[in-house]
Amino acid sequence: MIAACDYLATSRPTAVNLFWAIDRMRRVAEQHPAISSEQLAARLLAEARAIHEEDIALCTEIGRHGADLLADLPIGSGILTHCNAGALATSGDGTALAVIFELQRRGRRPHVWVDETRPLLQGSRLTAWELSQRGIDCTLICDSMAAQVMREGRVAAVIVGADRVAADGAAANKIGTYGVAVVAAAHNLPLYVAVPASSFDLSLSDGSQIPIELRDPDEVTHFAGVQVAPPNISVYNPAFDVTPPGLIRGLITDRGVIEPVTRESIARVIGEPG
Amino acid sequence: MIAACDYLATSRPTAVNLFWAIDRMRRVAEQHPAISSEQLAARLLAEARAIHEEDIALCTEIGRHGADLLADLPIGSGILTHCNAGALATSGDGTALAVIFELQRRGRRPHVWVDETRPLLQGSRLTAWELSQRGIDCTLICDSMAAQVMREGRVAAVIVGADRVAADGAAANKIGTYGVAVVAAAHNLPLYVAVPASSFDLSLSDGSQIPIELRDPDEVTHFAGVQVAPPNISVYNPAFDVTPPGLIRGLITDRGVIEPVTRESIARVIGEPG
Repeated sequence: MIAACDYLATSRPTAVNLFWAIDRMRRVAEQHPAISSEQLAARLLAEARAIHEEDIALCTEIGRHGADLLADLPIGSGILTHCNAGALATSGDGTALAVIFELQRRGRRPHVWVDETRPLLQGSRLTAWELSQRGIDCTLICDSMAAQVMREGRVAAVIVGADRVAADGAAANKIGTYGVAVVAAAHNLPLYVAVPASSFDLSLSDGSQIPIELRDPDEVTHFAGVQVAPPNISVYNPAFDVTPPGLIRGLITDRGVIEPVTRESIARVIGEPG
Repeated sequence: MIAACDYLATSRPTAVNLFWAIDRMRRVAEQHPAISSEQLAARLLAEARAIHEEDIALCTEIGRHGADLLADLPIGSGILTHCNAGALATSGDGTALAVIFELQRRGRRPHVWVDETRPLLQGSRLTAWELSQRGIDCTLICDSMAAQVMREGRVAAVIVGADRVAADGAAANKIGTYGVAVVAAAHNLPLYVAVPASSFDLSLSDGSQIPIELRDPDEVTHFAGVQVAPPNISVYNPAFDVTPPGLIRGLITDRGVIEPVTRESIARVIGEPG
């Protein structure tokens, strides 16, 4: 079981609640060193189901806090999102998309601008699909169009998820989020990061300490098996970037909204760094 | 011949030197209303060849002025570009890439960060190929990575081309250029637009008057024939955006560098609006 935990921990370096969940499973084993394999398996399954149930509930809470926060946006307001932070990425309604789903439930009819999210197109493949399934108005754009859509006045707010948030509020999320945050700030648009308490890593003082996964050049040079760039071209393909707290208007967590984003406000809601 | 001119003029609305070249051809016909078809064809061919030769020469001039402008950049400096403004897009060495080719000739060894340029991947398919062919160091990135590469301090300047420049210096270029300009400004990096005098449209007072071509949603939803987004999803696909003069450090033209970018400096170099 320890070998399985170690193996799963090698899968992706950036998202911290992977490690948080693995640690919870590991603790179950540590707390019961003398039980049989069958008994341990039953306890691990119960813990996994508890995590699953908690995740559903915290998505609901994020959605509720986020929809409260954005309650004053006019009906039909544009909300831009990047990558996928919805039901396909969580046990419940997601994080960023939970807010949008809750706004829709409340009759606010958000119009979602969906960044396609190169290189792996989570926006096109997942977010656009989820929103369509739920009957939410959305428009798919290339990542490079986000600034133009903002300039045209079509966006009222940006909501994204996060894979790890440091003690200062810096948030690692899918590559491209930092660029979205910069252009949102240039257009005086608020950017909110919707993220559960389990994605905070208070052991990291700031965002520079978050490990960033570098991925295969083929993700950029090939598409559906078709090569679209010269052979042997050099590629830089970081899977995530880190948005500094100064570009984040608020952190929408299951424990409430953290705004403004400071070490102190995070410590109050999430806990003391340690 | 007039019908052919009219037909060619319907092909793309945004780039102005298409119309400039068509007008030159049209004037040849107008100036010789009484000659035979063979004689007219010979004169049109001569005019086309003159345009071709002039284009080669002005690319060379743009390259020279740009390389003079950037002569103080340290050897090996990073230069980011978006879309393709090279030998594949002009008769000569291009506009933005002419500067890079000339820097390379002068031993400055630029390292070029190439935005892939969604949706049509001119960066991956054309720019990366051109640079590789010439032995210039380059790294391909997704458009959404440009901000991160700048934040890492790997970029010293941005150079792009333009399809039309208004009298105030606002420059229409491939979609995504505006976003690059915003993130460059946020990182205190200069953005230069390399553009021939024939791409200025002094009949337009400002950038809001430049017509922007909207293109087929399939460019975003399909890739190499593979559908990557849900069917019937709404798509916004402007082919160009307009970068305001306040985000452009200088215009590198065949007649010299226009810096700062103001109506007055443009009028001095390009001519009076009319």
